[in-house]
Amino acid sequence: MKHQQQEWLSTPKLICGLMSGTSLDGIDAAIVEFSVQNGKHIFTIKSHTTIPYSPEFRTEITRIIEKKSTIADISWLHFAISEFHAIAVQKACELAGITPHLLDGVGFHGQTVWHSPTPKKKLGNSISSTLQLGSPSVLATILGIPVVGDFRSADVAVGGQGAPLVPMFDANFLREENRSIIALNIGGIANITLLPALDHNGSIRAFDTGPGNVLIDAATRMFFGKQLDSNGAFAAAGRTVGAMLTQLKNHSFITKVPPKSTGREDFNPTWLQKRIRTTFQPSIPSEDIVRTVTEFTAWSIAENIRLFADTSSKIIASGGGIHNKTLISMIQKELPNTEIITTDAIGIPSDAKEAICFAYLAYRTLGGLPGNIPTVTGASREVKLGVIAFP
Amino acid sequence: MKHQQQEWLSTPKLICGLMSGTSLDGIDAAIVEFSVQNGKHIFTIKSHTTIPYSPEFRTEITRIIEKKSTIADISWLHFAISEFHAIAVQKACELAGITPHLLDGVGFHGQTVWHSPTPKKKLGNSISSTLQLGSPSVLATILGIPVVGDFRSADVAVGGQGAPLVPMFDANFLREENRSIIALNIGGIANITLLPALDHNGSIRAFDTGPGNVLIDAATRMFFGKQLDSNGAFAAAGRTVGAMLTQLKNHSFITKVPPKSTGREDFNPTWLQKRIRTTFQPSIPSEDIVRTVTEFTAWSIAENIRLFADTSSKIIASGGGIHNKTLISMIQKELPNTEIITTDAIGIPSDAKEAICFAYLAYRTLGGLPGNIPTVTGASREVKLGVIAFP
Repeated sequence: MKHQQQEWLSTPKLICGLMSGTSLDGIDAAIVEFSVQNGKHIFTIKSHTTIPYSPEFRTEITRIIEKKSTIADISWLHFAISEFHAIAVQKACELAGITPHLLDGVGFHGQTVWHSPTPKKKLGNSISSTLQLGSPSVLATILGIPVVGDFRSADVAVGGQGAPLVPMFDANFLREENRSIIALNIGGIANITLLPALDHNGSIRAFDTGPGNVLIDAATRMFFGKQLDSNGAFAAAGRTVGAMLTQLKNHSFITKVPPKSTGREDFNPTWLQKRIRTTFQPSIPSEDIVRTVTEFTAWSIAENIRLFADTSSKIIASGGGIHNKTLISMIQKELPNTEIITTDAIGIPSDAKEAICFAYLAYRTLGGLPGNIPTVTGASREVKLGVIAFP
Repeated sequence: MKHQQQEWLSTPKLICGLMSGTSLDGIDAAIVEFSVQNGKHIFTIKSHTTIPYSPEFRTEITRIIEKKSTIADISWLHFAISEFHAIAVQKACELAGITPHLLDGVGFHGQTVWHSPTPKKKLGNSISSTLQLGSPSVLATILGIPVVGDFRSADVAVGGQGAPLVPMFDANFLREENRSIIALNIGGIANITLLPALDHNGSIRAFDTGPGNVLIDAATRMFFGKQLDSNGAFAAAGRTVGAMLTQLKNHSFITKVPPKSTGREDFNPTWLQKRIRTTFQPSIPSEDIVRTVTEFTAWSIAENIRLFADTSSKIIASGGGIHNKTLISMIQKELPNTEIITTDAIGIPSDAKEAICFAYLAYRTLGGLPGNIPTVTGASREVKLGVIAFP
């Protein structure tokens, strides 16, 4: 296949990346043109959009993740998700002013319904696994263009965590010559990728730092009945409750030495309620609670950078959390010597970053290039990620 | 991709085909070399073998098909099946005296756990679907060779039944210049593919004729406690019970006009018990029952050929049922003017035929050729089948 891969990389390619995260909000789609210039990959974003899942659709996915299901229901969802992603591609194409047939490929993450890189022993076999619903074959047949999917299995098959995969994008597009970069993503959970300066030999590492928006969202829902603290206005109007902050900081994950990963099983509304119970008083204004939780979140991110990274790095932030201005300014206050910018400042819409990343991973797979970074995922070697459906 | 496909077809290719049927016996593997000679595809079989599933493994698959399961269990099985297929490839390679790295590709059918080409309406969407467990990406990563999988989805996505797919093999390798051929497969259910003579313009059709081994096996288990009537010895020792045969023949599926398909939901031990209840007497020797059921099976196949095919065709039979000599001789008696041979007679081990077919379908997909026959599956057009994982 060598010849074909070089051919692939020899001309610019237009790829639609599709990401549907574990938050089950919907599908992010981004159309990106990739090409090679002076031996380096470069890209231009043509369009990006989000198609929300309907509440019923979200409920159905949640049901399959949380409860036992018939294989008929799973098979139905596998195809339904594929068809729904076709609509997202079409919308992104409309925004870019092109027809889907002009695309050279699609990067189709699929909907994660299970991810267990830790082996599970059954019937005498210890087996790690990951499962994303959505058939690349169905999507390629509908759209008439090559579709890459099932990005995580190969890394898991060689002993990796199958995640994070975004660092391959960060490594190619965010690194600088003589300053180390920290790519910070604030989703439900926050994670950082450490990118040593190119003139250094250091290896790329990535790990979760703790909560991203998950606890702030939970506090806002509990005390204001709102989905999120947009712009961080509630937190900005409150004052930190010292005793409560001390209680929150007392979670061993934050200072745990990497590699490490966490999730909603560790940080969730129930955990938050338990943690603030002893220091909570009805007289405390709701804004103060949200501010304290925001303060804790900012501290947990900063503390990880102080302990395990270089504070003279530049932080490039992305994810929904960057819209919370109070959170970002708190992180900046915790790290006074660290420059913090968002991916938007360098031309990457932060909401579309993951979709752009999976467009890039599809570009690599179609070009015969590996997509995982073993020092990041723990895989025993580099592997090409995913399967390709040619229409 | 045009250039690469022509390159693929320009030299002989060694492919391992893997089939694990709905009988859940285990995995059939066949290593086959394909090449193009005078514009026609030709093949040579290098080895074939079967790896049985352990009883526990079979029970686990059955449980997932029949009962509600957690997505964790399905994800585990998805990876476990992939790893088990790697063992089958390795065994087939040993028998062929080669290492897996000498293979150019693998055709990985996967374990069908759901197949519903009839649309199911849910959440306002009518969706057909099919689901084969086993990740081509995992198998390709383990073996270090390209793996093709998910063969049925694309055909379902364009309105086809996603089955049968074997006719593409039959069309290329069993057709004759001036005589029509009937490819008869006697598995649990029996089906035929009608291959008009090449000098004719007729289209290829395929359909189920009714029971294959399913009722004979059921009768043998009920009356002799044995899994099957090997060689048809029980049937050979019995006499037909006329009234019982008449009752059995009274099933509308047999004479239904094609296209048609059936399954174990129509023909199963419970149906058989109900059907023979009124004519059963304890004095009837068990051999007579098995013979009568065998007679019915032979008649149902022959009747379909008399009604919907050309009795001057040559029948090329395959599937487990061809080992039942009594069954085959009964079909011959029903169709005195039809020549009946087995695929073994033309160098295709009948037990390995499906694995050989999926090796061929992988060869076609890797060569950029479509794999379905729209007149057979009902698809709106020809499509390339499956996804490819490049290691």
